[in-house]
Amino acid sequence: MSESLPTAYPSGVHPPSFGVRLAEAMAQFGPLCAGIDPHPGLVQAWGLSYDLRGLERFALTCVEAFGGRVAAVKPQSAFFEVFGSAGVAILERTVGALRAAGTLVILDVKRGDIGTTMDAYAEAFLGKDAVDPPDAITVSPYLGYGSLRPAIDLAHATGRGIFVLALTSNPEGPAVQHARLGGVSVAGHVVAGATADNAAAAAAGELGSVGLVVGATVGDAVAELGLDLPGVNGAFLAPGVGAQGGTVDSLRRVFGTALPRVLASSSREVLQAGPDVRSLARQVEAVAAELRCLQE
Amino acid sequence: MSESLPTAYPSGVHPPSFGVRLAEAMAQFGPLCAGIDPHPGLVQAWGLSYDLRGLERFALTCVEAFGGRVAAVKPQSAFFEVFGSAGVAILERTVGALRAAGTLVILDVKRGDIGTTMDAYAEAFLGKDAVDPPDAITVSPYLGYGSLRPAIDLAHATGRGIFVLALTSNPEGPAVQHARLGGVSVAGHVVAGATADNAAAAAAGELGSVGLVVGATVGDAVAELGLDLPGVNGAFLAPGVGAQGGTVDSLRRVFGTALPRVLASSSREVLQAGPDVRSLARQVEAVAAELRCLQE
Repeated sequence: MSESLPTAYPSGVHPPSFGVRLAEAMAQFGPLCAGIDPHPGLVQAWGLSYDLRGLERFALTCVEAFGGRVAAVKPQSAFFEVFGSAGVAILERTVGALRAAGTLVILDVKRGDIGTTMDAYAEAFLGKDAVDPPDAITVSPYLGYGSLRPAIDLAHATGRGIFVLALTSNPEGPAVQHARLGGVSVAGHVVAGATADNAAAAAAGELGSVGLVVGATVGDAVAELGLDLPGVNGAFLAPGVGAQGGTVDSLRRVFGTALPRVLASSSREVLQAGPDVRSLARQVEAVAAELRCLQE
Repeated sequence: MSESLPTAYPSGVHPPSFGVRLAEAMAQFGPLCAGIDPHPGLVQAWGLSYDLRGLERFALTCVEAFGGRVAAVKPQSAFFEVFGSAGVAILERTVGALRAAGTLVILDVKRGDIGTTMDAYAEAFLGKDAVDPPDAITVSPYLGYGSLRPAIDLAHATGRGIFVLALTSNPEGPAVQHARLGGVSVAGHVVAGATADNAAAAAAGELGSVGLVVGATVGDAVAELGLDLPGVNGAFLAPGVGAQGGTVDSLRRVFGTALPRVLASSSREVLQAGPDVRSLARQVEAVAAELRCLQE
Protein backbone atom coordinates (compact mmCIF):
# COMPACT_ATOMS: atom_id res chain seq x y z
CA MET A 1 0.00 0.00 0.00
CA SER A 2 2.01 2.99 1.17
CA GLU A 3 5.24 1.15 0.69
CA SER A 4 8.44 3.06 0.74
CA LEU A 5 9.93 3.88 -2.64
CA PRO A 6 12.74 1.46 -3.42
CA THR A 7 16.06 3.16 -3.91
CA ALA A 8 16.71 1.67 -7.34
CA TYR A 9 14.71 0.15 -10.17
CA PRO A 10 15.88 -2.19 -12.91
CA SER A 11 16.54 -0.43 -16.17
CA GLY A 12 13.30 0.41 -17.97
CA VAL A 13 11.09 -0.18 -14.94
CA HIS A 14 9.41 2.95 -13.65
CA PRO A 15 8.61 3.40 -9.98
CA PRO A 16 4.95 3.88 -9.05
CA SER A 17 4.15 7.58 -9.10
CA PHE A 18 3.77 9.64 -5.94
CA GLY A 19 0.16 10.33 -6.88
CA VAL A 20 -0.64 6.62 -7.06
CA ARG A 21 1.13 5.91 -3.79
CA LEU A 22 -0.59 8.82 -2.05
CA ALA A 23 -4.03 7.76 -3.29
CA GLU A 24 -3.43 4.26 -1.93
CA ALA A 25 -2.21 5.56 1.41
CA MET A 26 -5.20 7.92 1.75
CA ALA A 27 -7.58 5.05 0.95
CA GLN A 28 -5.94 2.84 3.55
CA PHE A 29 -5.39 5.31 6.38
CA GLY A 30 -7.77 8.19 5.72
CA PRO A 31 -6.96 11.73 4.58
CA LEU A 32 -4.76 12.93 7.42
CA CYS A 33 -1.23 14.26 7.12
CA ALA A 34 0.27 14.46 10.60
CA GLY A 35 2.72 17.32 11.11
CA ILE A 36 5.99 17.13 12.98
CA ASP A 37 6.39 20.71 14.19
CA PRO A 38 8.88 20.79 17.05
CA HIS A 39 8.49 24.44 17.95
CA PRO A 40 9.94 25.62 21.25
CA GLY A 41 6.69 25.75 23.22
CA LEU A 42 5.63 22.29 22.15
CA VAL A 43 9.00 20.65 22.79
CA GLN A 44 9.01 22.10 26.29
CA ALA A 45 5.36 21.12 26.84
CA TRP A 46 6.50 17.57 26.22
CA GLY A 47 8.97 17.94 29.08
CA LEU A 48 11.95 17.99 26.73
CA SER A 49 14.84 20.41 26.62
CA TYR A 50 14.81 22.71 23.59
CA ASP A 51 18.11 21.51 22.16
CA LEU A 52 19.37 18.87 19.74
CA ARG A 53 18.70 16.07 22.19
CA GLY A 54 15.12 17.25 22.80
CA LEU A 55 14.58 17.78 19.08
CA GLU A 56 15.68 14.23 18.26
CA ARG A 57 13.57 12.74 21.03
CA PHE A 58 10.52 14.74 19.84
CA ALA A 59 10.96 13.71 16.22
CA LEU A 60 11.60 10.03 16.91
CA THR A 61 8.60 9.90 19.25
CA CYS A 62 6.50 11.18 16.35
CA VAL A 63 8.01 8.56 14.04
CA GLU A 64 7.11 5.80 16.48
CA ALA A 65 3.58 7.10 16.95
CA PHE A 66 2.76 8.00 13.32
CA GLY A 67 4.67 5.36 11.32
CA GLY A 68 2.26 2.89 9.74
CA ARG A 69 -0.79 4.70 11.17
CA VAL A 70 -1.41 7.64 8.85
CA ALA A 71 -1.41 8.40 5.11
CA ALA A 72 1.45 10.86 5.32
CA VAL A 73 3.64 12.72 7.77
CA LYS A 74 4.84 16.28 7.22
CA PRO A 75 7.98 17.34 9.06
CA GLN A 76 8.45 21.11 9.08
CA SER A 77 12.03 21.77 7.99
CA ALA A 78 12.31 25.19 9.68
CA PHE A 79 12.11 23.66 13.16
CA PHE A 80 15.11 21.48 12.34
CA GLU A 81 17.07 24.13 10.41
CA VAL A 82 16.96 26.38 13.47
CA PHE A 83 19.57 24.03 14.97
CA GLY A 84 21.82 24.29 11.92
CA SER A 85 23.36 21.33 10.12
CA ALA A 86 23.07 19.15 13.23
CA GLY A 87 19.32 19.79 13.20
CA VAL A 88 19.17 18.96 9.50
CA ALA A 89 20.94 15.67 10.26
CA ILE A 90 18.14 14.83 12.73
CA LEU A 91 15.59 15.73 10.05
CA GLU A 92 17.31 13.31 7.66
CA ARG A 93 17.14 10.52 10.24
CA THR A 94 13.47 11.35 10.87
CA VAL A 95 12.60 11.17 7.18
CA GLY A 96 14.55 7.95 6.74
CA ALA A 97 12.87 6.31 9.74
CA LEU A 98 9.39 7.26 8.55
CA ARG A 99 10.01 5.86 5.09
CA ALA A 100 11.51 2.70 6.59
CA ALA A 101 8.19 2.37 8.46
CA GLY A 102 6.41 2.49 5.09
CA THR A 103 4.87 5.91 5.67
CA LEU A 104 4.83 8.66 3.05
CA VAL A 105 6.80 11.76 3.97
CA ILE A 106 5.97 15.24 2.69
CA LEU A 107 8.83 17.48 3.71
CA ASP A 108 7.66 21.05 4.21
CA VAL A 109 10.57 23.13 2.88
CA LYS A 110 8.81 25.65 0.57
CA ARG A 111 11.86 25.98 -1.65
CA GLY A 112 11.71 27.97 -4.86
CA ASP A 113 14.36 29.37 -7.19
CA ILE A 114 15.31 29.40 -10.87
CA GLY A 115 17.67 27.68 -13.27
CA THR A 116 20.62 25.71 -11.92
CA THR A 117 19.68 26.70 -8.37
CA MET A 118 16.23 25.15 -8.74
CA ASP A 119 17.96 22.12 -10.27
CA ALA A 120 20.00 21.85 -7.09
CA TYR A 121 16.97 22.09 -4.79
CA ALA A 122 15.23 19.44 -6.90
CA GLU A 123 18.25 17.13 -6.66
CA ALA A 124 18.55 17.82 -2.93
CA PHE A 125 15.07 16.59 -2.12
CA LEU A 126 13.78 14.64 -5.13
CA GLY A 127 16.88 13.30 -6.87
CA LYS A 128 17.98 9.69 -7.08
CA ASP A 129 21.13 10.52 -5.12
CA ALA A 130 19.40 12.69 -2.50
CA VAL A 131 20.34 12.10 1.14
CA ASP A 132 17.35 10.48 2.89
CA PRO A 133 14.85 12.02 0.48
CA PRO A 134 11.17 12.43 1.34
CA ASP A 135 8.36 11.27 -0.97
CA ALA A 136 7.36 14.85 -1.74
CA ILE A 137 8.22 18.43 -0.83
CA THR A 138 6.40 21.73 -0.72
CA VAL A 139 7.60 24.44 -3.12
CA SER A 140 6.96 28.18 -3.48
CA PRO A 141 6.12 29.79 -6.85
CA TYR A 142 6.94 33.50 -6.34
CA LEU A 143 9.29 33.20 -9.33
CA GLY A 144 6.43 31.79 -11.43
CA TYR A 145 5.00 28.29 -11.63
CA GLY A 146 7.25 27.57 -14.61
CA SER A 147 10.38 28.23 -12.54
CA LEU A 148 9.57 25.03 -10.64
CA ARG A 149 10.00 22.91 -13.79
CA PRO A 150 13.20 21.15 -12.60
CA ALA A 151 11.39 19.91 -9.49
CA ILE A 152 8.28 18.87 -11.41
CA ASP A 153 10.27 16.93 -14.00
CA LEU A 154 12.58 15.28 -11.49
CA ALA A 155 9.65 14.31 -9.26
CA HIS A 156 8.01 12.59 -12.23
CA ALA A 157 11.25 10.79 -13.07
CA THR A 158 11.87 9.49 -9.55
CA GLY A 159 8.30 8.69 -8.55
CA ARG A 160 8.17 11.58 -6.11
CA GLY A 161 5.84 14.55 -5.79
CA ILE A 162 5.55 18.24 -5.06
CA PHE A 163 2.92 20.43 -3.42
CA VAL A 164 2.95 23.95 -4.82
CA LEU A 165 1.80 26.84 -2.63
CA ALA A 166 -1.39 28.14 -4.23
CA LEU A 167 -3.86 29.78 -1.84
CA THR A 168 -3.20 30.19 1.86
CA SER A 169 -5.36 31.30 4.76
CA ASN A 170 -2.97 33.71 6.46
CA PRO A 171 -4.25 37.30 6.28
CA GLU A 172 -1.18 38.50 4.33
CA GLY A 173 -1.59 35.93 1.53
CA PRO A 174 -4.27 37.53 -0.67
CA ALA A 175 -2.08 40.56 -1.48
CA VAL A 176 -0.07 38.21 -3.67
CA GLN A 177 -2.32 35.23 -4.35
CA HIS A 178 -5.47 37.18 -5.33
CA ALA A 179 -3.65 39.58 -7.65
CA ARG A 180 -4.57 39.16 -11.30
CA LEU A 181 -2.84 39.32 -14.66
CA GLY A 182 -4.93 39.10 -17.83
CA GLY A 183 -7.93 38.19 -15.66
CA VAL A 184 -6.19 35.22 -14.07
CA SER A 185 -5.26 35.33 -10.40
CA VAL A 186 -1.84 34.28 -9.18
CA ALA A 187 -3.46 31.31 -7.43
CA GLY A 188 -5.24 30.53 -10.72
CA HIS A 189 -1.91 30.61 -12.54
CA VAL A 190 -0.65 27.95 -10.14
CA VAL A 191 -3.84 25.91 -10.50
CA ALA A 192 -3.49 26.01 -14.30
CA GLY A 193 0.10 24.87 -14.13
CA ALA A 194 -0.66 21.90 -11.89
CA THR A 195 -3.65 20.96 -14.05
CA ALA A 196 -1.45 20.80 -17.13
CA ASP A 197 1.27 18.81 -15.38
CA ASN A 198 -1.25 16.29 -14.06
CA ALA A 199 -3.02 15.85 -17.41
CA ALA A 200 -1.16 12.66 -18.37
CA ALA A 201 -2.00 11.08 -15.01
CA ALA A 202 -5.62 12.17 -15.43
CA ALA A 203 -5.76 10.49 -18.83
CA ALA A 204 -4.42 7.32 -17.20
CA GLY A 205 -7.09 7.52 -14.49
CA GLU A 206 -4.49 8.11 -11.78
CA LEU A 207 -3.99 10.88 -9.24
CA GLY A 208 -1.31 13.29 -10.44
CA SER A 209 1.91 13.91 -8.54
CA VAL A 210 1.71 17.71 -8.55
CA GLY A 211 -0.40 18.68 -5.56
CA LEU A 212 -1.34 22.13 -4.30
CA VAL A 213 -1.27 23.75 -0.90
CA VAL A 214 -4.68 25.31 -0.28
CA GLY A 215 -5.58 26.51 3.21
CA ALA A 216 -8.45 24.83 5.06
CA THR A 217 -9.93 28.20 5.99
CA VAL A 218 -9.70 30.29 2.81
CA GLY A 219 -13.50 30.49 2.77
CA ASP A 220 -15.03 31.70 -0.49
CA ALA A 221 -11.72 32.64 -2.14
CA VAL A 222 -11.72 29.56 -4.38
CA ALA A 223 -15.11 30.53 -5.77
CA GLU A 224 -14.28 34.25 -5.96
CA LEU A 225 -11.11 33.55 -7.92
CA GLY A 226 -12.88 31.01 -10.13
CA LEU A 227 -10.42 28.22 -9.37
CA ASP A 228 -11.29 24.83 -10.85
CA LEU A 229 -9.91 22.61 -8.09
CA PRO A 230 -11.62 19.38 -9.22
CA GLY A 231 -9.91 19.83 -12.59
CA VAL A 232 -6.42 19.78 -11.05
CA ASN A 233 -6.38 15.99 -10.56
CA GLY A 234 -3.82 16.32 -7.79
CA ALA A 235 -4.02 16.16 -4.03
CA PHE A 236 -4.67 19.26 -1.94
CA LEU A 237 -2.55 19.62 1.13
CA ALA A 238 -4.76 21.66 3.45
CA PRO A 239 -2.96 23.09 6.47
CA GLY A 240 -4.86 24.59 9.35
CA VAL A 241 -7.14 21.70 10.27
CA GLY A 242 -7.90 21.35 13.97
CA ALA A 243 -6.36 23.78 16.43
CA GLN A 244 -5.96 26.43 13.72
CA GLY A 245 -9.70 26.51 13.02
CA GLY A 246 -10.15 24.26 10.00
CA THR A 247 -13.11 21.90 10.27
CA VAL A 248 -14.83 19.40 8.02
CA ASP A 249 -17.38 22.11 7.26
CA SER A 250 -14.72 24.66 6.32
CA LEU A 251 -12.99 22.08 4.11
CA ARG A 252 -16.31 21.30 2.40
CA ARG A 253 -16.85 25.00 1.75
CA VAL A 254 -13.38 25.44 0.25
CA PHE A 255 -13.02 22.26 -1.79
CA GLY A 256 -16.53 21.29 -2.88
CA THR A 257 -16.42 18.28 -5.17
CA ALA A 258 -12.61 18.15 -4.85
CA LEU A 259 -13.07 17.08 -1.23
CA PRO A 260 -12.01 13.45 -1.77
CA ARG A 261 -8.58 14.67 -2.87
CA VAL A 262 -7.96 16.72 0.27
CA LEU A 263 -5.09 15.63 2.48
CA ALA A 264 -5.83 17.51 5.68
CA SER A 265 -2.72 18.57 7.55
CA SER A 266 -2.89 18.82 11.30
CA SER A 267 -0.02 19.47 13.64
CA ARG A 268 -1.04 21.05 16.92
CA GLU A 269 -4.26 19.06 17.34
CA VAL A 270 -2.31 15.83 16.98
CA LEU A 271 0.89 16.81 18.78
CA GLN A 272 -0.85 18.09 21.89
CA ALA A 273 -1.54 14.42 22.72
CA GLY A 274 2.21 13.80 23.27
CA PRO A 275 4.68 12.94 24.56
CA ASP A 276 3.19 9.53 25.30
CA VAL A 277 3.55 7.41 22.16
CA ARG A 278 0.34 5.48 22.70
CA SER A 279 -1.68 8.66 23.28
CA LEU A 280 -0.18 10.20 20.14
CA ALA A 281 -0.95 7.06 18.13
CA ARG A 282 -4.54 6.99 19.38
CA GLN A 283 -4.94 10.70 18.64
CA VAL A 284 -3.65 10.40 15.07
CA GLU A 285 -5.97 7.47 14.40
CA ALA A 286 -8.93 9.32 15.93
CA VAL A 287 -8.33 12.46 13.87
CA ALA A 288 -7.88 10.40 10.69
CA ALA A 289 -11.14 8.56 11.41
CA GLU A 290 -12.98 11.87 11.89
CA LEU A 291 -11.74 13.01 8.50
CA ARG A 292 -12.87 9.84 6.69
CA CYS A 293 -16.12 11.64 5.88
CA LEU A 294 -14.19 13.84 3.42
CA GLN A 295 -13.74 10.79 1.21
CA GLU A 296 -17.42 9.84 1.00
CA MET B 1 34.50 49.39 7.77
CA SER B 2 32.81 46.12 6.92
CA GLU B 3 33.68 44.65 10.27
CA SER B 4 32.08 41.43 11.33
CA LEU B 5 29.13 41.76 13.69
CA PRO B 6 30.26 40.97 17.22
CA THR B 7 28.41 38.04 18.72
CA ALA B 8 27.27 39.93 21.78
CA TYR B 9 26.68 43.55 22.80
CA PRO B 10 26.61 44.99 26.28
CA SER B 11 23.11 45.46 27.59
CA GLY B 12 21.46 48.50 26.04
CA VAL B 13 24.01 48.84 23.24
CA HIS B 14 22.57 48.24 19.79
CA PRO B 15 24.66 46.73 17.03
CA PRO B 16 25.15 48.82 13.89
CA SER B 17 22.37 48.00 11.43
CA PHE B 18 22.94 45.82 8.40
CA GLY B 19 22.04 48.76 6.16
CA VAL B 20 24.77 50.91 7.71
CA ARG B 21 27.33 48.13 7.49
CA LEU B 22 26.41 47.38 3.87
CA ALA B 23 26.62 51.03 2.85
CA GLU B 24 30.11 51.23 4.38
CA ALA B 25 31.23 48.04 2.66
CA MET B 26 29.89 49.18 -0.72
CA ALA B 27 31.68 52.53 -0.33
CA GLN B 28 34.94 50.77 0.51
CA PHE B 29 34.91 47.91 -1.98
CA GLY B 30 32.46 48.91 -4.72
CA PRO B 31 28.99 47.53 -5.42
CA LEU B 32 29.80 43.89 -6.15
CA CYS B 33 28.37 40.88 -4.37
CA ALA B 34 30.38 37.81 -5.38
CA GLY B 35 28.41 34.59 -5.56
CA ILE B 36 29.54 31.21 -4.31
CA ASP B 37 27.60 28.87 -6.60
CA PRO B 38 29.24 25.45 -6.55
CA HIS B 39 27.12 23.83 -9.23
CA PRO B 40 28.28 20.53 -10.67
CA GLY B 41 29.70 21.86 -13.95
CA LEU B 42 31.68 24.60 -12.23
CA VAL B 43 33.10 22.37 -9.51
CA GLN B 44 34.29 19.94 -12.15
CA ALA B 45 35.64 22.77 -14.33
CA TRP B 46 37.84 23.66 -11.36
CA GLY B 47 39.25 20.12 -11.49
CA LEU B 48 37.48 19.10 -8.29
CA SER B 49 35.37 16.04 -7.63
CA TYR B 50 31.66 16.77 -7.22
CA ASP B 51 31.40 15.51 -3.66
CA LEU B 52 31.72 16.88 -0.13
CA ARG B 53 35.48 17.19 -0.42
CA GLY B 54 35.23 19.09 -3.71
CA LEU B 55 32.43 21.27 -2.33
CA GLU B 56 34.49 22.25 0.69
CA ARG B 57 37.56 22.96 -1.39
CA PHE B 58 35.51 25.10 -3.79
CA ALA B 59 33.88 27.09 -1.01
CA LEU B 60 37.06 27.68 0.98
CA THR B 61 38.90 28.75 -2.17
CA CYS B 62 36.18 31.38 -2.66
CA VAL B 63 36.54 32.48 0.95
CA GLU B 64 40.28 32.95 0.50
CA ALA B 65 39.84 34.86 -2.76
CA PHE B 66 36.85 37.03 -1.81
CA GLY B 67 37.40 37.69 1.91
CA GLY B 68 38.40 41.30 2.49
CA ARG B 69 38.18 42.15 -1.22
CA VAL B 70 34.50 42.68 -1.92
CA ALA B 71 31.48 44.36 -0.32
CA ALA B 72 29.57 41.13 0.15
CA VAL B 73 29.61 37.46 -0.72
CA LYS B 74 26.47 35.45 -1.50
CA PRO B 75 26.68 31.69 -1.01
CA GLN B 76 23.82 29.87 -2.70
CA SER B 77 22.36 27.48 -0.13
CA ALA B 78 20.87 25.05 -2.66
CA PHE B 79 24.31 23.96 -3.86
CA PHE B 80 25.21 22.98 -0.31
CA GLU B 81 21.82 21.49 0.62
CA VAL B 82 22.14 19.07 -2.29
CA PHE B 83 24.72 17.23 -0.16
CA GLY B 84 22.35 17.05 2.82
CA SER B 85 23.30 17.99 6.37
CA ALA B 86 27.00 17.42 5.64
CA GLY B 87 26.74 20.02 2.87
CA VAL B 88 24.96 22.42 5.22
CA ALA B 89 27.82 21.96 7.70
CA ILE B 90 30.25 23.09 4.98
CA LEU B 91 28.01 26.07 4.29
CA GLU B 92 28.15 26.99 7.98
CA ARG B 93 31.94 26.84 7.95
CA THR B 94 31.97 28.95 4.77
CA VAL B 95 29.76 31.63 6.29
CA GLY B 96 31.78 31.64 9.50
CA ALA B 97 35.08 31.96 7.65
CA LEU B 98 33.83 34.84 5.50
CA ARG B 99 32.58 36.76 8.52
CA ALA B 100 35.83 36.06 10.36
CA ALA B 101 37.53 37.70 7.36
CA GLY B 102 35.36 40.79 7.95
CA THR B 103 33.28 40.32 4.81
CA LEU B 104 29.50 40.67 4.75
CA VAL B 105 27.63 37.47 3.91
CA ILE B 106 24.23 37.41 2.23
CA LEU B 107 23.02 33.84 2.36
CA ASP B 108 20.73 33.06 -0.55
CA VAL B 109 18.09 30.76 0.95
CA LYS B 110 14.81 32.32 -0.27
CA ARG B 111 12.90 31.06 2.75
CA GLY B 112 9.29 32.09 3.31
CA ASP B 113 6.53 30.79 5.55
CA ILE B 114 4.03 32.00 8.15
CA GLY B 115 3.60 32.16 11.91
CA THR B 116 5.75 30.01 14.15
CA THR B 117 7.41 28.45 11.09
CA MET B 118 8.57 31.86 9.86
CA ASP B 119 9.72 32.55 13.42
CA ALA B 120 11.88 29.43 13.19
CA TYR B 121 13.41 30.41 9.83
CA ALA B 122 14.14 33.85 11.24
CA GLU B 123 15.82 32.36 14.32
CA ALA B 124 17.73 29.89 12.12
CA PHE B 125 19.42 32.58 10.06
CA LEU B 126 19.02 35.89 11.88
CA GLY B 127 18.64 34.98 15.54
CA LYS B 128 21.16 35.69 18.27
CA ASP B 129 21.61 31.95 18.84
CA ALA B 130 21.80 31.03 15.15
CA VAL B 131 24.58 28.63 14.12
CA ASP B 132 27.16 30.59 12.07
CA PRO B 133 24.59 33.16 10.93
CA PRO B 134 25.09 35.31 7.84
CA ASP B 135 24.65 39.10 7.86
CA ALA B 136 21.52 38.86 5.72
CA ILE B 137 19.36 36.32 3.90
CA THR B 138 17.07 36.35 0.91
CA VAL B 139 13.38 35.66 1.55
CA SER B 140 10.38 34.88 -0.66
CA PRO B 141 7.02 36.66 -0.23
CA TYR B 142 4.51 34.32 -1.94
CA LEU B 143 2.62 34.24 1.38
CA GLY B 144 2.50 38.04 1.38
CA TYR B 145 5.11 40.61 2.41
CA GLY B 146 3.52 40.77 5.86
CA SER B 147 4.18 37.06 6.45
CA LEU B 148 7.87 37.92 6.60
CA ARG B 149 7.39 40.09 9.70
CA PRO B 150 9.25 37.75 12.08
CA ALA B 151 12.35 37.94 9.86
CA ILE B 152 12.10 41.71 9.42
CA ASP B 153 11.72 42.34 13.15
CA LEU B 154 14.44 39.91 14.17
CA ALA B 155 16.83 41.33 11.57
CA HIS B 156 16.29 44.80 13.00
CA ALA B 157 16.88 43.51 16.53
CA THR B 158 20.12 41.69 15.74
CA GLY B 159 21.63 44.16 13.26
CA ARG B 160 21.06 41.83 10.34
CA GLY B 161 19.18 42.26 7.08
CA ILE B 162 16.92 40.65 4.54
CA PHE B 163 16.53 40.89 0.78
CA VAL B 164 12.95 40.24 -0.32
CA LEU B 165 12.30 38.82 -3.79
CA ALA B 166 10.51 41.57 -5.71
CA LEU B 167 11.00 41.52 -9.47
CA THR B 168 13.06 38.90 -11.25
CA SER B 169 14.28 38.56 -14.80
CA ASN B 170 13.41 34.89 -15.45
CA PRO B 171 10.67 34.57 -18.08
CA GLU B 172 8.27 32.82 -15.67
CA GLY B 173 8.41 35.61 -13.06
CA PRO B 174 5.96 38.18 -14.49
CA ALA B 175 2.98 35.76 -14.21
CA VAL B 176 3.19 36.34 -10.45
CA GLN B 177 5.14 39.57 -9.99
CA HIS B 178 3.26 41.70 -12.55
CA ALA B 179 -0.21 40.61 -11.38
CA ARG B 180 -2.21 43.40 -9.80
CA LEU B 181 -4.66 43.80 -6.93
CA GLY B 182 -6.40 47.13 -6.47
CA GLY B 183 -4.11 48.61 -9.12
CA VAL B 184 -0.94 47.61 -7.27
CA SER B 185 1.32 44.92 -8.71
CA VAL B 186 2.66 42.11 -6.57
CA ALA B 187 6.14 43.59 -7.00
CA GLY B 188 4.70 46.95 -5.98
CA HIS B 189 3.23 45.39 -2.84
CA VAL B 190 6.73 44.20 -1.91
CA VAL B 191 8.24 47.61 -2.73
CA ALA B 192 5.64 49.31 -0.52
CA GLY B 193 6.37 46.96 2.37
CA ALA B 194 10.11 47.51 2.22
CA THR B 195 9.63 51.28 1.92
CA ALA B 196 7.57 51.30 5.11
CA ASP B 197 10.04 49.11 7.00
CA ASN B 198 12.97 51.30 5.97
CA ALA B 199 11.22 54.57 6.87
CA ALA B 200 12.86 54.92 10.28
CA ALA B 201 16.31 54.39 8.76
CA ALA B 202 15.45 56.92 6.04
CA ALA B 203 14.50 59.47 8.67
CA ALA B 204 17.86 58.85 10.34
CA GLY B 205 19.65 59.34 7.02
CA GLU B 206 20.82 55.72 6.95
CA LEU B 207 20.37 52.92 4.43
CA GLY B 208 17.59 50.58 5.57
CA SER B 209 18.15 46.92 6.32
CA VAL B 210 15.30 45.60 4.18
CA GLY B 211 16.66 45.22 0.68
CA LEU B 212 14.97 43.91 -2.44
CA VAL B 213 15.98 41.42 -5.11
CA VAL B 214 15.43 43.05 -8.49
CA GLY B 215 16.88 41.43 -11.60
CA ALA B 216 19.55 43.25 -13.58
CA THR B 217 17.73 42.56 -16.83
CA VAL B 218 14.04 43.25 -16.09
CA GLY B 219 14.13 46.04 -18.67
CA ASP B 220 11.20 48.46 -18.53
CA ALA B 221 9.20 46.47 -15.97
CA VAL B 222 10.05 48.87 -13.14
CA ALA B 223 8.65 51.77 -15.12
CA GLU B 224 5.66 49.80 -16.43
CA LEU B 225 4.67 48.72 -12.94
CA GLY B 226 5.27 52.21 -11.56
CA LEU B 227 7.70 51.06 -8.88
CA ASP B 228 9.34 53.82 -6.85
CA LEU B 229 12.72 52.19 -6.26
CA PRO B 230 14.52 55.34 -5.07
CA GLY B 231 11.85 55.64 -2.36
CA VAL B 232 12.67 52.23 -0.89
CA ASN B 233 15.83 53.42 0.89
CA GLY B 234 17.22 49.90 0.89
CA ALA B 235 19.82 48.12 -1.19
CA PHE B 236 18.90 46.29 -4.38
CA LEU B 237 20.49 42.93 -4.85
CA ALA B 238 20.62 42.56 -8.62
CA PRO B 239 21.42 39.05 -9.83
CA GLY B 240 22.31 38.38 -13.43
CA VAL B 241 25.23 40.72 -13.88
CA GLY B 242 27.95 39.47 -16.18
CA ALA B 243 27.63 36.05 -17.79
CA GLN B 244 23.84 36.16 -17.47
CA GLY B 245 23.59 39.31 -19.59
CA GLY B 246 23.32 42.13 -17.07
CA THR B 247 25.51 45.15 -17.89
CA VAL B 248 26.03 48.61 -16.48
CA ASP B 249 23.66 49.86 -19.18
CA SER B 250 20.94 47.37 -18.29
CA LEU B 251 21.33 48.25 -14.59
CA ARG B 252 21.03 51.95 -15.44
CA ARG B 253 17.83 51.27 -17.39
CA VAL B 254 16.29 49.27 -14.54
CA PHE B 255 17.31 51.32 -11.51
CA GLY B 256 17.57 54.92 -12.72
CA THR B 257 18.32 57.22 -9.80
CA ALA B 258 18.37 54.24 -7.41
CA LEU B 259 21.59 53.09 -9.10
CA PRO B 260 23.90 54.02 -6.20
CA ARG B 261 22.04 51.53 -4.01
CA VAL B 262 22.49 48.60 -6.39
CA LEU B 263 24.55 45.69 -5.12
CA ALA B 264 25.28 43.81 -8.33
CA SER B 265 25.50 40.08 -7.86
CA SER B 266 27.77 38.12 -10.11
CA SER B 267 28.61 34.46 -9.84
CA ARG B 268 29.65 32.88 -13.12
CA GLU B 269 31.65 35.85 -14.41
CA VAL B 270 33.71 35.84 -11.24
CA LEU B 271 33.91 32.10 -10.61
CA GLN B 272 35.11 31.26 -14.11
CA ALA B 273 38.47 32.76 -13.08
CA GLY B 274 39.03 29.89 -10.60
CA PRO B 275 40.36 27.68 -9.23
CA ASP B 276 43.51 29.76 -8.79
CA VAL B 277 43.04 31.99 -5.75
CA ARG B 278 45.07 34.88 -7.14
CA SER B 279 43.17 34.83 -10.44
CA LEU B 280 39.88 34.78 -8.57
CA ALA B 281 40.98 37.64 -6.34
CA ARG B 282 42.09 39.71 -9.33
CA GLN B 283 38.83 38.96 -11.14
CA VAL B 284 36.65 40.00 -8.23
CA GLU B 285 38.58 43.24 -7.83
CA ALA B 286 38.38 43.93 -11.57
CA VAL B 287 34.62 43.35 -11.74
CA ALA B 288 34.07 45.48 -8.61
CA ALA B 289 36.15 48.28 -10.17
CA GLU B 290 34.12 48.12 -13.40
CA LEU B 291 30.93 48.53 -11.35
CA ARG B 292 32.21 51.58 -9.46
CA CYS B 293 30.56 53.76 -12.09
CA LEU B 294 27.16 52.75 -10.66
CA GLN B 295 27.97 54.77 -7.56
CA GLU B 296 28.81 58.01 -9.36
